[in-house]
Amino acid sequence: MKVGILGGGQLARMIALAGYPLGVRFVFLDPSISACATTLGSHLHGDYEDENLLAELSKRADVVTYEFENVPAKVANFLEAHTQVYPSPKALAVAQDRLIEKDFLNELGIPTAPYHDITTFESLQNAMETIGYPAILKTRTQGYDGKGQSVLKSSADLKSAWQKLDGLPAVVEGFVKFSREISIVAVRSVSGELAFYPLSENVHKGGILRVSQSLHNDPMQEKAQDYVTRLMTALKYVGVLALELFEVNGELIANEFAPRVHNSGHWTIEGAQTSQFENHLRAILDLPLGSTQAVDYVAMVNFIGGKPDSEEMLKIPNVHLHLYGKAPRKGRKIAHATIRAKTLAELETLKKQLIKLADETDDS
Amino acid sequence: MKVGILGGGQLARMIALAGYPLGVRFVFLDPSISACATTLGSHLHGDYEDENLLAELSKRADVVTYEFENVPAKVANFLEAHTQVYPSPKALAVAQDRLIEKDFLNELGIPTAPYHDITTFESLQNAMETIGYPAILKTRTQGYDGKGQSVLKSSADLKSAWQKLDGLPAVVEGFVKFSREISIVAVRSVSGELAFYPLSENVHKGGILRVSQSLHNDPMQEKAQDYVTRLMTALKYVGVLALELFEVNGELIANEFAPRVHNSGHWTIEGAQTSQFENHLRAILDLPLGSTQAVDYVAMVNFIGGKPDSEEMLKIPNVHLHLYGKAPRKGRKIAHATIRAKTLAELETLKKQLIKLADETDDS
Repeated sequence: MKVGILGGGQLARMIALAGYPLGVRFVFLDPSISACATTLGSHLHGDYEDENLLAELSKRADVVTYEFENVPAKVANFLEAHTQVYPSPKALAVAQDRLIEKDFLNELGIPTAPYHDITTFESLQNAMETIGYPAILKTRTQGYDGKGQSVLKSSADLKSAWQKLDGLPAVVEGFVKFSREISIVAVRSVSGELAFYPLSENVHKGGILRVSQSLHNDPMQEKAQDYVTRLMTALKYVGVLALELFEVNGELIANEFAPRVHNSGHWTIEGAQTSQFENHLRAILDLPLGSTQAVDYVAMVNFIGGKPDSEEMLKIPNVHLHLYGKAPRKGRKIAHATIRAKTLAELETLKKQLIKLADETDDS
Repeated sequence: MKVGILGGGQLARMIALAGYPLGVRFVFLDPSISACATTLGSHLHGDYEDENLLAELSKRADVVTYEFENVPAKVANFLEAHTQVYPSPKALAVAQDRLIEKDFLNELGIPTAPYHDITTFESLQNAMETIGYPAILKTRTQGYDGKGQSVLKSSADLKSAWQKLDGLPAVVEGFVKFSREISIVAVRSVSGELAFYPLSENVHKGGILRVSQSLHNDPMQEKAQDYVTRLMTALKYVGVLALELFEVNGELIANEFAPRVHNSGHWTIEGAQTSQFENHLRAILDLPLGSTQAVDYVAMVNFIGGKPDSEEMLKIPNVHLHLYGKAPRKGRKIAHATIRAKTLAELETLKKQLIKLADETDDS
C-alpha cells in the first residue's frame, strides 16, 4: 500500500514513521527540497498547485491525505477526481473558512463563541455593539498559530485592526472567559468505525501550543465525544480530526477543528495504545482502528525556535524526544518531547523540569 | 549525527525507525538492492568486504554498528582503524565462535552446558564418552536459527553428523533439560552506564524463535543481570547485548549471547519505557540511557515464511504490527506482532488468538 501526503513536514514525518511497521510506503509532495519527512519515501518536489505533480501523486498513491488544512479547493477537487482522498474536500472547505466552520458547528448544535461576519468597517462597528469588548478579529481563512488575528480591547483598536485585515474577509468573535483549553482527537474509518482519545488539556502562549497533557476520566470526555461525533458524522469524515474546545462554567464551547493529525495529539505516540498517526493510516486504509486507551500518564512539551541539547533532555527520566530534523528559526516548531509516568505526581515533577528547559531555549 | 549500519535488514530498519525521532540519520551497507531498511537512509550497495565501501561508510558515519554478529574479523578491524565501531571487534570475535564464547563465559563464572572442542572424528567419539547422549554437535562459527546443528541421540548418529560438518571446526554440547528458555537484553553506554530489561521468556520451534514474553519481577532477574554485567564489563561492551539462558533446577545456564539488538527484545518497542533499538543508539552515541521499565504486559509473536492479512491481525485488540517489508520465503522472518495488555490474563487470551493466526500461515 502506498499513501500520498500533501506536505512533507513533521506531521507527514510522524505519519510515515507510524506507517513503516504497517507495511505502508509513502510519496510526499512538498515545495521544499529539505522538507523533513521526505527522506522516508519518494519526494515530488514542487508547488502544491502543480497539476502535473498532483497527477503523478494520484497515480503513485492508493490514497492521498495531507498534513495541513489550507489545501486550495481546486487542488483537493483535482485530487478527488483522480484518486481516493481522505479527509474529503468538503471537510477541508469547512475547516479552512472560520465563518463556514462556525455556521456548520452551530447547525450541529455544537456551541461556539458569539461571532459576526465582517465585510466592511461598518459591519465591524455594528457587530461590536452586540458582541462587546474584548473580542478577537480574525481573517476567515489562512490563519494558524495566532497569525491573522487582532485582539480588540476597546473601540480605539477597531481602526488599526480593520486596516491590518487589508480587505480580507473576516469574523469577529466574542472573548471566551474559559477555565481551560482542551481538545479531543478522534478518528473515523472508511467503514464508519469511530474511536476517541482521552481529552488533552492544552496551554498556548502567543497563539502557539506549548504543553498538552492527557486527561484520565475527565468529566468533559463524554460531552466532547458527543460533539466530535456529530461533526465527523455530518462530514462523513475519514481520518483523524481534532476539535479544540474551551471549558466555560462546566460547558464546552468549540473554538475550531483541524481535519488532520494534531499537535495536541502528539502525546498519543507514547501515551495511547495506538498513536493518532497510526490510527489516521488505519482509518484511511480501511483497517480496523487501534485502541485509543491511555498508557500511563503523559504530557507533551513543544520546542519553538530553539531546543536544549538532547543530552540535557534525555537526562530527565522517561523523556521521549521527537526532533523534526528542521533547522531552528524564530517561531518555528522544531521538536517536541513527551514524558510518560506511572503516577500523576511523578508526571508533574518531570514536566516542570522539561518546561524549564523549553523556556530557556524558547525563541518564538 | 549519522550512524552507519552493516546490514540493512529488519534489525537495521527498527534501529532507524527509533533513530529518526532522536535526530539521527543513517547509512546502510548491504549487498541486497531491496534490503528492507535502506529506504530509511542512504544505501551503500555492495559486498560487506568491499574496502572502498567500508571506507565510504566510515567517512560518512560518526559511529558504525551492525545488525548481525557474523561480521568477518578483517571487516571489523578495518572499520575500527577508520572510525568508531560499537560493539567492538573483540565482542564480535567472542560471539561468533562457539568455543571461544563458551570458554569466555566459563572464565567469568557464567555456567554453560558441558562442551568439547571437536577437531577429528576421534575427538567426537571421545567427547561423547564424558558428555553422554543426547547431545548437539554445532559448527563453531556461522550457525544461527538452528542452522549447522545436529542432534546426537545415540552413537549411531555420530558418523552422519560428523560428515555433515564437512571438515568445519565444531563443538559438541551436552543436552540441557531446561524448564524454560529465557533471555536478558541489556545495554551499556560509551560512558559505562548499564541498564537491563525485564527478562524475556522464549519459545523456539525448529531452532527459530516463535514467541517472547516479558516477565515481571521474575525470580531469575537478579541472577541474569549479574551474568550479563560480568559479560559486558569484561568485554567493555557498548550497545545492546542479549544473553540467552536456560533455567535448570532453579539455576541459569548460558546458551549464547548476541552482540546486537535481539529478536527476544522486540517487545520492548511497546512494552518498555525505551525500546532496545533506541537504547542501542543512545548507548553508542553516548547519550543517557532510557528507562527499561516495563509498560504493561507484552508478548511478541514471529511470522515465519508467511503472515496473515493485516486486517485479520489488527482485529485482535492491542495488536501492534511490525511488517519488515520483506517478500515471503520459506523459513524467512518477515514480520512480528506485539500484544500489550493491562493484565496478564488478558494478554494470555489475546496471545492465543495471535499464535493461532501465526500457525495458520507458518512456512518455516
